[in-house]
Amino acid sequence: MSHPLDALFRPRSVAIIGASSDANRIGGRPVRFSKYAFKGAILPINPNQTEIQGLPAFASVRDVPGRVDQAIVAVPAKAAVQAVDDCIAKGVKAIVMFSSGFAETGAEGRAMQAGLARRCAAGGVKLLGPNSLGMLNVEAGLYSTFSSYFDPLWPRSGPVGIVSQSGAFGTYFLALAVERGLGFSHFVATGNEADIDVAACVDWLADDPATGVIMIYLEGCRDGARLRAALAKAAANRKPVIAMKVGVSDKGIAAIASHTGTLAGSDAVFDAVFRENNVHRARTLDELVDVAYACSGGVFPGSPRVGVVTISGGVGIQMADAAADLGLELPRMPEAAQRQVLAMVPFAGPANPVDATAQVINDWSMFTKILRLVAEEGNVDSVISFLAHTGTTPGVMERLKPALQEVRTRFPERVFILCMRMPREMADEFTRIGFLVFEDPTRAIAAVAALSRLAQGYARPRIARAEIKAAPALPGPINEAEAKRILSEAGVPFAPERVARTRDEAVAAAKDIGFPVVLKILSADIAHKSEAGGVALGLRHAQEVAQAYDTMIATVAQREPSARIDGVLVARMIEGVETVIGVKRDAVFGPVVMFGLGGIYVEVLKDVTLRLAPVDRSGALEMIRAINGFPLLAGARGRPAVELDALADALVAMSRFGAAHPEVGSAEINPFIALPAGGVAVDALILTGEGE
Amino acid sequence: MSHPLDALFRPRSVAIIGASSDANRIGGRPVRFSKYAFKGAILPINPNQTEIQGLPAFASVRDVPGRVDQAIVAVPAKAAVQAVDDCIAKGVKAIVMFSSGFAETGAEGRAMQAGLARRCAAGGVKLLGPNSLGMLNVEAGLYSTFSSYFDPLWPRSGPVGIVSQSGAFGTYFLALAVERGLGFSHFVATGNEADIDVAACVDWLADDPATGVIMIYLEGCRDGARLRAALAKAAANRKPVIAMKVGVSDKGIAAIASHTGTLAGSDAVFDAVFRENNVHRARTLDELVDVAYACSGGVFPGSPRVGVVTISGGVGIQMADAAADLGLELPRMPEAAQRQVLAMVPFAGPANPVDATAQVINDWSMFTKILRLVAEEGNVDSVISFLAHTGTTPGVMERLKPALQEVRTRFPERVFILCMRMPREMADEFTRIGFLVFEDPTRAIAAVAALSRLAQGYARPRIARAEIKAAPALPGPINEAEAKRILSEAGVPFAPERVARTRDEAVAAAKDIGFPVVLKILSADIAHKSEAGGVALGLRHAQEVAQAYDTMIATVAQREPSARIDGVLVARMIEGVETVIGVKRDAVFGPVVMFGLGGIYVEVLKDVTLRLAPVDRSGALEMIRAINGFPLLAGARGRPAVELDALADALVAMSRFGAAHPEVGSAEINPFIALPAGGVAVDALILTGEGE
Repeated sequence: MSHPLDALFRPRSVAIIGASSDANRIGGRPVRFSKYAFKGAILPINPNQTEIQGLPAFASVRDVPGRVDQAIVAVPAKAAVQAVDDCIAKGVKAIVMFSSGFAETGAEGRAMQAGLARRCAAGGVKLLGPNSLGMLNVEAGLYSTFSSYFDPLWPRSGPVGIVSQSGAFGTYFLALAVERGLGFSHFVATGNEADIDVAACVDWLADDPATGVIMIYLEGCRDGARLRAALAKAAANRKPVIAMKVGVSDKGIAAIASHTGTLAGSDAVFDAVFRENNVHRARTLDELVDVAYACSGGVFPGSPRVGVVTISGGVGIQMADAAADLGLELPRMPEAAQRQVLAMVPFAGPANPVDATAQVINDWSMFTKILRLVAEEGNVDSVISFLAHTGTTPGVMERLKPALQEVRTRFPERVFILCMRMPREMADEFTRIGFLVFEDPTRAIAAVAALSRLAQGYARPRIARAEIKAAPALPGPINEAEAKRILSEAGVPFAPERVARTRDEAVAAAKDIGFPVVLKILSADIAHKSEAGGVALGLRHAQEVAQAYDTMIATVAQREPSARIDGVLVARMIEGVETVIGVKRDAVFGPVVMFGLGGIYVEVLKDVTLRLAPVDRSGALEMIRAINGFPLLAGARGRPAVELDALADALVAMSRFGAAHPEVGSAEINPFIALPAGGVAVDALILTGEGE
Repeated sequence: MSHPLDALFRPRSVAIIGASSDANRIGGRPVRFSKYAFKGAILPINPNQTEIQGLPAFASVRDVPGRVDQAIVAVPAKAAVQAVDDCIAKGVKAIVMFSSGFAETGAEGRAMQAGLARRCAAGGVKLLGPNSLGMLNVEAGLYSTFSSYFDPLWPRSGPVGIVSQSGAFGTYFLALAVERGLGFSHFVATGNEADIDVAACVDWLADDPATGVIMIYLEGCRDGARLRAALAKAAANRKPVIAMKVGVSDKGIAAIASHTGTLAGSDAVFDAVFRENNVHRARTLDELVDVAYACSGGVFPGSPRVGVVTISGGVGIQMADAAADLGLELPRMPEAAQRQVLAMVPFAGPANPVDATAQVINDWSMFTKILRLVAEEGNVDSVISFLAHTGTTPGVMERLKPALQEVRTRFPERVFILCMRMPREMADEFTRIGFLVFEDPTRAIAAVAALSRLAQGYARPRIARAEIKAAPALPGPINEAEAKRILSEAGVPFAPERVARTRDEAVAAAKDIGFPVVLKILSADIAHKSEAGGVALGLRHAQEVAQAYDTMIATVAQREPSARIDGVLVARMIEGVETVIGVKRDAVFGPVVMFGLGGIYVEVLKDVTLRLAPVDRSGALEMIRAINGFPLLAGARGRPAVELDALADALVAMSRFGAAHPEVGSAEINPFIALPAGGVAVDALILTGEGE
């Protein structure tokens, strides 16, 4: 075996330590389940039995003749250490530990778990759990789990692999997906993740020929770099990953902390990681199952252009609304094709959405002809048909099937969706011949939008991740002038400015730089200068500068009496579009770069976007275009557009600075003034130590 | 009968004109369907038969002895006029017209339909359709429809009434709701709405004792005032209305125009109408069915405080995330109650979400005890329990039922949700004893959020709609100075300003008013002054004013050579938070009032809110708080808060002005500068004629 997790996912022999003759007990279930179909060796271990559920039992895993790939540990926590030692002695490659009573129970349990993990690492055995619900290999008939859910609802074999940090929720969405008709390759519940985590499982599934689609459920992540790498591998292998990640709200995050002790990274950074690696993040259970189902069809549309054919005009409108909302396009049917539709159905709406009207119910061949026309002439890569109750009218869909199948086969690169009610078996049959079946029109549209976004992600050239060497650490604290010098050296352009330490120096500097100018207090101890009275804008002549200097020094002394004042910065006042560029260190994923519109709009309207640092210019441009306020940069209401490349270059420079300085908790340019030609940073702040 | 639609919804006798002996034909189905259970008279009309499906048939409706309340017209369009005349002669009170070939087919059909409508109005008969799929009265067993869907899936009797502008989609969501276990009072498909429209049906259902919840599906609305009145009546009678309204996107609206010819009002105005009348607007089919199901439980929680109990910590987090997103609160359990939870389950998460852990699976009485604790001590009005697969494990829920029912009965004013998988019959049983059953945790949370919002709406004092008398019409076009005078008289405060017609007048005015000042070109022909070079800001002394005056006159003359220039406005420059207050006339609903943050952020970020005009001060304050940028007005980042009442009063004045002037297409104050004390309008625009 070549991958350390092969023995977990694809063992040829499985020992059950703590096997029970009672087929309904935790130690009895995996024996019973795997007996149905598993072709490998099932080896019950129990010192008090010679036979368990008809299979020969062994007193210890050490006593088993021949190789043991995987061992299930289904004994209480106290006996687990001995079981692990036995496994190591035997040369077992992977342990699936059901036993609970470890990190989830407090400090003592955490220490016990750490001991187990160390033992396993030293002994060369991979550990799933403890406190894991186990794993399945559906095709192999291997059910190394004690979940009673699988009996009698055995999932069918298929392309979907599931990795879940929660056994209860993992089996729950598995169940809903089974009811939806999905088929599965593997299921793994990672439990307490003392060793094997979600990243390790994704890494394995990304190479597994039986797995085409990966569903993951995350409550947190301890090693961001490994998760990123695993997701990148899945993306490179074009295996769509659909992720549900909980812990978005403060309330949710507090609950995680008490639940598993996993460090919940900033949720927006997870978004950035998912975006980077073309992972679809599902916000609801329905979305999780819908998108996995759509992906398991294996067709990713070449464009966001969708054709919609309905027998109800209103549903066409609904789908058009949803499509517009989700960035899909409904191109108008060409005039000639529209005429052909009208020749068949005079009162049809022929444009797209095509309203075939209820008239086609009297002659279904008209419907299939219209469907073919939309697929052939409609300039679309996905076709959704809404047929309401037709699937519950006896015989109709059976008669339609050959014509539908013919259209489907003719356009293998297109996504075809039937949106309608039909019995489960019929839906399975249409899924088998290449259709996706949905009931809810807006969910059908959302699924196409997800497929289209994934396709766009796969089409994007994959950029080799830049390796940035760590630079010598900066000493802290860093005042504004130092911050500017450091970031200027890092490649960020700054406005010309001078430091003044007296009123006369300030006036002289202003005259040199040219009016209007701004004055800003210079102190490493003051993060929010405006509030401290440390900013004066739009000073037009010497007298205003002198007066502003005096007022500022007095106000700041009063409001921030303990701050060390290093003088006043005098800079040219520049008018343009204010933006904010920041980097910060995420506790899980490391440096990230942030971009948004400047001023208080960032803080009030939260119109910002994040990426993992460093980004290159194309990534930076994508960030700039991602904010809601982008039209302000592109020249809204007749204003001049700013030079996007210059802004992007500043983002790139900041992101590289963040990546090179692990000691920097956060750094920010606020504002960076974007101009029609170029752009300049006006203010800079670097905070060493912990990020936000 | 006291209401004109009684004969439609609750007839004692039904004639079927065009009745067929073939039980599967359009004219045969209503006979067959109603024969199952309808206790009233079923009167087939067919000149060629004396008996139809075992019932005596009549040659004409005129020949029927005794009263005919409702007549179904199931003959082709050409024969429909004669059928209507017969109905009028007989004294029929309501016609259900299946016949198609009217307005949906073009100009000729529209004319025919208008003729029919006139005939019915003159003859004193109400008309449903034409092109209607018909109606049901479920309790009475009346199926005046030709939809084959209802056979064999007869909906069960219950509190939900459906009114749909689309027969196909109406039966589709009815079907999904039936599968979900909902019960129904009536179903009406309004078809072409030549007479009876959605508003008329809602008006009737709002008084119907059998109807507790109303679902409507709208593609458009011709008479906004009647729809508002009907929705207001439903709200006053505390009958929740759940509306799906399509045609949000441009693409969707174009499709409506080609589909039914209904005038699609601006979608945001529909939002305002729904908000005003406490209507829940569903964006998806799932949401439509979920909220109707939740409402049919009849319990509306007294607060947005929710208690969550799960057997999976991760699902608790998911629900906490969704709750935070939707404005629900999860109050922490009191310490004493937390200790009680921990005494039972040592590793529970006791705060809320309460993670009862998988341990309760071994002793379900612990779960019901925890549930009771949350309901009793948790300071919540809704309780959601996540129990995963428990409903599919034989016997468990049956054993839990008495304890669950006991808790349910003890707290009749609370909403109790079971979030889990269970068989349909079990879900129906738990629904019957007062639980709501959901599978998807986030959909369960969304349903509670919907109930909570509806409850808040019912708790709000209902404000009598102000009657505003139409004022004498304003002549157009109206220049800025006139607009300011008019709106000032309407009660909007304006900044002091003077009109100047020469450079010297401008300088003199500025000196009188006090520096800094702004100059603005005065011309009724220029809507966008900035683009025309007609605005100069922050002029600090006489020389700047003189220079700005000359430049402005020259630039405007060059950019807008045909504009008539009435001079230049000189006003004090005032710094505060820029807002926009507007009114416009909606084609369907009449005057609406709009509020948003000023500057280009309104146009780029679209952060605006709409209400029907007029609003009172509390409505205006609600609008001000509804925008995303509200923190800017409330004093973000240490800035002073503005005087919200002054801003609200300006909104009230503008809204009353809009309501009093039907000839005004739109009027806008941009900006209205909100100040810590008071606020002033700086610019005003009134456009007579058509609104946007």
